[in-house]
Amino acid sequence: MSETAQKSAVVLLSGGLDSATVLALARADGYRTIALSFRYGQRHQLELERARLIAQALNAAEHRIVDIDLAAFGGSALTADIPVPKGRPADALAEGIPVTYVPARNTIFLSFALALAEVAGAGAIFIGVNALDYSGYPDCRPEYLSAFEALANLATKAGVEGHGVAIKAPLIDLTKAEIIRRGTELGVDYGLTLSCYDPDEAGRACGGCDSCQLRRRGFAEAGLPDPTVYAVEPV
Amino acid sequence: MSETAQKSAVVLLSGGLDSATVLALARADGYRTIALSFRYGQRHQLELERARLIAQALNAAEHRIVDIDLAAFGGSALTADIPVPKGRPADALAEGIPVTYVPARNTIFLSFALALAEVAGAGAIFIGVNALDYSGYPDCRPEYLSAFEALANLATKAGVEGHGVAIKAPLIDLTKAEIIRRGTELGVDYGLTLSCYDPDEAGRACGGCDSCQLRRRGFAEAGLPDPTVYAVEPV
Repeated sequence: MSETAQKSAVVLLSGGLDSATVLALARADGYRTIALSFRYGQRHQLELERARLIAQALNAAEHRIVDIDLAAFGGSALTADIPVPKGRPADALAEGIPVTYVPARNTIFLSFALALAEVAGAGAIFIGVNALDYSGYPDCRPEYLSAFEALANLATKAGVEGHGVAIKAPLIDLTKAEIIRRGTELGVDYGLTLSCYDPDEAGRACGGCDSCQLRRRGFAEAGLPDPTVYAVEPV
Repeated sequence: MSETAQKSAVVLLSGGLDSATVLALARADGYRTIALSFRYGQRHQLELERARLIAQALNAAEHRIVDIDLAAFGGSALTADIPVPKGRPADALAEGIPVTYVPARNTIFLSFALALAEVAGAGAIFIGVNALDYSGYPDCRPEYLSAFEALANLATKAGVEGHGVAIKAPLIDLTKAEIIRRGTELGVDYGLTLSCYDPDEAGRACGGCDSCQLRRRGFAEAGLPDPTVYAVEPV
């Protein structure tokens, strides 16, 4: 494998705050980055346009968008017609698995990233999950990521040939405030990112869903200005 | 979880000999079966029509087809424009990873099966891989399947709640001849199945690719008539 290929990484890029920060971190680590986004029947296609702008702003070498049909399986407020919960008290956010959980989503995303990593000869896959603010998703836990890395190195030609794929989750132990501080140091323009589960047509955040609440609290705790445009200005 | 839900299984169904046998085995085990096939940019869409006929003949409760775009990644003779090797000597079949290997294919297929299992409340996923005739694919090995099962039970709500998903590969230790004998006992019509990597437009098998060779040898060893229609009758 060439030197160039070994320094390539696939970066899962959703258009949100976390994955934008991860892309900046992968770039800062010296990786040639292949950003990978998905069109998965989600209600907010706006995310993909944000992902495109972020990949461009952070100098990703490539940005690929793969169509997948998670909506065919239903089962989540992010793909089906289940209302997104609003205004839940902040201390309730971490309890249980929320209705916005998409079945096996990260497993599907990582599987495609693995296929791309194998074809591109990339030695790492970056994913923006974190354990502290993980909002109850089972596939955002460190033990899940370790299991995927073990799988990846049994699943692929690269693994069999001894130069495996590392699953990197550099945000895993960071709070939202720490993520925002780190990304700001690296020049991430958080005005491009969209965290809201339920933005309006103009791409303005609702301010009330779990994701908006976590984000707002993060900027407040980081002591940094929140560039998010909200449909209804927070009180 | 209801009794009905616990007895459901997702069965990966390609339209080939192995997965048809697996569907029959899952039905014989008393599962309500949800057959799952993929349209993945493969050159032989004929497979999907065969899968539909097999699901019907073997009384699958449902048959779902999911579109995924593996061709976007290239890297395999089954999705890209790399010639399928023909007429390789039989003793060369098991050596190395062949060009027909699709990057991370089983990982992607199992990930979608996992999403469907979670939504449908199915407690098992059946896959028709086998170790003896596995033709050099890294993601057909028993240790790979164990790693996926471990992942599945960390990835999902069902796993977190304690009623996990079992990955079942009932063909894993069988020879092609044993598979054919078992399926024949269960009434599988192998005339419906298509194993060939490179069939002609009428759906006739080429007779020369690795998959055709394994299949022909299997029927011969089983001492059963081969219902396959070949474009060129084998000598």
